[in-house]
Amino acid sequence: MKVGLLESLNVELPDREYPILIGKDFLSESISIGKYISGKQVLVITNETIAPLYLEWLINILGKENFRCESLILPDGEEYKNLKHIELIYDKLMALSYDRKATLIALGGGVVGDMTGFAAATYRRGVSFIQIPTTILAQVDSSVGGKTGVNHPLGKNMIGAFYQPRCVLADIGVLDTLEQRQVSAGLAEIIKYGLIADREFFNWLEENIEALCCRDHEKLAYAIKVSCRTKAGIVAEDELEHGIRALLNLGHTFGHAIENVMGYGNWLHGEAVATGTCIAAEMSRKMGFLEQSDLDRIIDLHRRAQLPIESPSGMTSKQYIEAMGEDKKVENGKIRLVLLEKIGKAFVSDDYDDDILYSVLKEVCKE
Amino acid sequence: MKVGLLESLNVELPDREYPILIGKDFLSESISIGKYISGKQVLVITNETIAPLYLEWLINILGKENFRCESLILPDGEEYKNLKHIELIYDKLMALSYDRKATLIALGGGVVGDMTGFAAATYRRGVSFIQIPTTILAQVDSSVGGKTGVNHPLGKNMIGAFYQPRCVLADIGVLDTLEQRQVSAGLAEIIKYGLIADREFFNWLEENIEALCCRDHEKLAYAIKVSCRTKAGIVAEDELEHGIRALLNLGHTFGHAIENVMGYGNWLHGEAVATGTCIAAEMSRKMGFLEQSDLDRIIDLHRRAQLPIESPSGMTSKQYIEAMGEDKKVENGKIRLVLLEKIGKAFVSDDYDDDILYSVLKEVCKE
Repeated sequence: MKVGLLESLNVELPDREYPILIGKDFLSESISIGKYISGKQVLVITNETIAPLYLEWLINILGKENFRCESLILPDGEEYKNLKHIELIYDKLMALSYDRKATLIALGGGVVGDMTGFAAATYRRGVSFIQIPTTILAQVDSSVGGKTGVNHPLGKNMIGAFYQPRCVLADIGVLDTLEQRQVSAGLAEIIKYGLIADREFFNWLEENIEALCCRDHEKLAYAIKVSCRTKAGIVAEDELEHGIRALLNLGHTFGHAIENVMGYGNWLHGEAVATGTCIAAEMSRKMGFLEQSDLDRIIDLHRRAQLPIESPSGMTSKQYIEAMGEDKKVENGKIRLVLLEKIGKAFVSDDYDDDILYSVLKEVCKE
Repeated sequence: MKVGLLESLNVELPDREYPILIGKDFLSESISIGKYISGKQVLVITNETIAPLYLEWLINILGKENFRCESLILPDGEEYKNLKHIELIYDKLMALSYDRKATLIALGGGVVGDMTGFAAATYRRGVSFIQIPTTILAQVDSSVGGKTGVNHPLGKNMIGAFYQPRCVLADIGVLDTLEQRQVSAGLAEIIKYGLIADREFFNWLEENIEALCCRDHEKLAYAIKVSCRTKAGIVAEDELEHGIRALLNLGHTFGHAIENVMGYGNWLHGEAVATGTCIAAEMSRKMGFLEQSDLDRIIDLHRRAQLPIESPSGMTSKQYIEAMGEDKKVENGKIRLVLLEKIGKAFVSDDYDDDILYSVLKEVCKE
């Protein structure tokens, strides 16, 4: 497979736009990252896992372009996605006397991206940032849409801001060093885009899921492009999540409950979303929207992607309900769910019958 | 003087607008605060000084309109304007399970407003907020323009966001309980609007400064309206402070240095701005822009407003330079200053002669 820039698309929002560039080993070659950096001061934020792999390489590229390039290495894991670690970023920026023209670069997965974005949104009331996502999940999901933030002890992503990067540089090459479990977790979000908006893409995924699991570069690049394009379209229409953007939360309300109850970091986000999506699909079938054959295909595709499709052993329906009550999607007391009409079409509902929700949860919890 | 709504104006920004309502004892009578509140969940954030005076009154008004109204009382003072106290707000909101339709109300001065605004900007990625400013300073300044945030140990307002309230309710009646020193501090910002944009208003202030010091309600309402209108016009043109909005920082770069060196809270913000403005005026004269007669009028008006016009005893020019280097207005290493061409016309400069800056600072520090 050729090296260089493979795909690109623009995320167009009402008052600004930014590019997502997808390629393989392309950063140093065909793209001048420098043109997305305002000023001369750069802080790369990464984590202990990614730093040994790619930090020196990135600093070299930036050094060649005469930026002042400093770095901050955070511990790796969702459990460090909190205000305390955001303060470390502020402390570093203040110690460096970085000004309002500084640029933060997020080099890492979704956690690094969310934290770097939030620090950029709030340091001196907003400085530039660039995303270099190093997981599939981050490439298709957390790098598009401007959601940034950290967790509160009582709930995930409760503290944050909507803030857009100057650009996203998604290098398929870096996925070669990803753990297999992380590959599957990323595929969960890719499957989601087929489910909510693109039946044809879902069909394509059924044909190519094993190749994706094996990191076929061309197929991954295609799947990431289609996912980003779908998400970019939805975000452009509804940046602040007042309407259709909620569809992106398919599987997430149940999934967040799983992450919350199991402890952040024990289940990967994508794994929890996979199981959450299967629960949402089951509920959609019970309510008479989704046909059994579509439900079977959904569960089967997740299984082939090596994703968990069953609720964590020991987790109770009561735990789901309690944790879901803390979710951001609750409005005026009613839990809003994303459900499926069919593969390729999702909708938001808060007028479902609570009894159906309880019976589905009891079933998946084997109560 | 009549009771009720006296003045109102709209702050018009590219993608939203909000009203500033100025009146006397008007909240419970002529305005339904309820129409600015989305949802049913309200959290009033105030401080230990203001709570005994106005909290019960506000909660009663909201209770009559059937809102769920909770409150959080913070300690009073700039030294508590930090992330630790923002976390108390998050903790309260999470403990109450408040959702994305919650509304935060800032009942207090600039510190309460800045902190409440920042919490609103970042709780669940943004909830509504309303400002009820209880100092002159907050009524003319911090409630207009969307600047929210907290201090970092190494610098003032270093952490924050641009975030607009749903409305600002400025009640002149509450100024009767203000300490005299706070009245003068508020007048410093009012004088600033005359200096940067409105020579005629400066003339009016010269005629009425003693009446303003004595809290003449009608004259205060007029001065607050003119100041808000000037600021609203500037902010509408430059919400994110890329250009002319910087003029609002007249006196602030020197002033922040004073606050920083003297310790936040020892000099009131308005007091530091007053002295900072006199230093900026002196520098403007030394550079040949401002005439001696205008300089004399500026110093005299500040003196009559019972504001400090001399640099804190013992503070050195070196301390100014160091503290100013930490200021937000530094870009790529050069301290940007707001200077005066004449009364009613300010400009931003970063190509002044450093020697003039040093010599002015040495002079004011009596070195």
